[in-house]
Amino acid sequence: MKPLILVTNDDGIIAPGIKALVEVMSTIGEVVVVAPDSPQSAKGHSITITDPIHIRKVKIFDGIEESYECSGTPADCVKIARKVILKNRKIDICVSGINHGSNASINVLYSGTMSAAMEGSLEGIKSIGFSLCDFSFEADFKPCLPYVKKITEGFLKLNQDTAKLLNVNFPKDEIKGMKICTQAKGNWIEDFQVGTNPRGENYYWMTGKFVNIDPSENADLNALKEGYISIVPVHHDLTHHEALHHNLLDDLIE
Amino acid sequence: MKPLILVTNDDGIIAPGIKALVEVMSTIGEVVVVAPDSPQSAKGHSITITDPIHIRKVKIFDGIEESYECSGTPADCVKIARKVILKNRKIDICVSGINHGSNASINVLYSGTMSAAMEGSLEGIKSIGFSLCDFSFEADFKPCLPYVKKITEGFLKLNQDTAKLLNVNFPKDEIKGMKICTQAKGNWIEDFQVGTNPRGENYYWMTGKFVNIDPSENADLNALKEGYISIVPVHHDLTHHEALHHNLLDDLIE
Repeated sequence: MKPLILVTNDDGIIAPGIKALVEVMSTIGEVVVVAPDSPQSAKGHSITITDPIHIRKVKIFDGIEESYECSGTPADCVKIARKVILKNRKIDICVSGINHGSNASINVLYSGTMSAAMEGSLEGIKSIGFSLCDFSFEADFKPCLPYVKKITEGFLKLNQDTAKLLNVNFPKDEIKGMKICTQAKGNWIEDFQVGTNPRGENYYWMTGKFVNIDPSENADLNALKEGYISIVPVHHDLTHHEALHHNLLDDLIE
Repeated sequence: MKPLILVTNDDGIIAPGIKALVEVMSTIGEVVVVAPDSPQSAKGHSITITDPIHIRKVKIFDGIEESYECSGTPADCVKIARKVILKNRKIDICVSGINHGSNASINVLYSGTMSAAMEGSLEGIKSIGFSLCDFSFEADFKPCLPYVKKITEGFLKLNQDTAKLLNVNFPKDEIKGMKICTQAKGNWIEDFQVGTNPRGENYYWMTGKFVNIDPSENADLNALKEGYISIVPVHHDLTHHEALHHNLLDDLIE
């Protein structure tokens, strides 16, 4: 039986990146698309609990019967896909992307693409977020596609139940191969562009520069810089076990 | 010199929880408040990059000169506080909350309260998210306050630089003490309430029930159930190191 594949993203259902992803997935299994009706970049793991969500069946992807746009966030898309659209049918894999822009390093925390994949993995579904390090709407996804297929088929087959979630990033330029990586240490140096709005009030518009401070060859940012596709296994246990192990906080509760 | 304390939350600047937090913090140091101008629950680590952000100085808290409402998300509040309002002055601690509702277990991923504290810790600032397991707007924060003070002062003094972020949850009922905990394993069983909007279209409204599947006595949910305040040290490295250590993914790249 063909695997059931849920496809979503955060750039919105008409983004070229999800079109490319759907085309690859339709060569692997039965595809159901549920994606935001508008761009949702940097939405983190946001969910919609104080408002209703709307979904609408759309005809966008050649040969795909089941595709829906959703008024919610990427994580909402996965929740409503499972419960309302697929009525708890077993999803074999959830793929998100291909994002227009990098989600390497700590950007995994801000990423709508990865939050959708994370949501899948929280439900025990193998999930992958794919991102291309090119923010352009006209980004060329073609060189990524054979790897998207290979990684998805490989992850579906992989006989292990420990790593449920992958953060896959593609370098912008020529691809030299794939590497299993760690999340690079780095941070954003923010800046705010200040302006005055039509009502005479100041506004601030966030911008920034990312700084990679990780010297490790296996850090995702460094693999990408060398021309490799970075594959980071991701988990959702945010406990700082090292702090517990060394009893660093014991003085707090004395 | 008094420590510089940045206070924020996700329930919005007029929520009773932040008022209680500001009152405690003003007994510890110099307080600057930058908080959302509207409720931002379940916003995850969302940031605002495609829109401008507005801030406005407000007079809400007795004796606090520097307080601002911000049109952005909790994480935005921390970014704009650092860069625009405090102009890169050294913040000694960033506290977020007190949230009206639990952020224990995997709810740390969805939590706006914790995303603000996470944002502080990403910048190397010691940060704490405080939450009370009571969703009511009229929740009684009083029994928490001596502990909020003790934990904040203790964390400020703690001579270690490894654990930068704490997720602190208070039980709803009588407090028996404090416990250093792990993030409990658990998941949401979602449901969607279906209705018809005034335009005749179906809408779906997310609801759900949380299921705790963690048997460990040290899991935060279990400590809370026993009447203890749970303190989980949190980090932002989402790499699944166990998967790397056991080479679980090596077949993927062959």
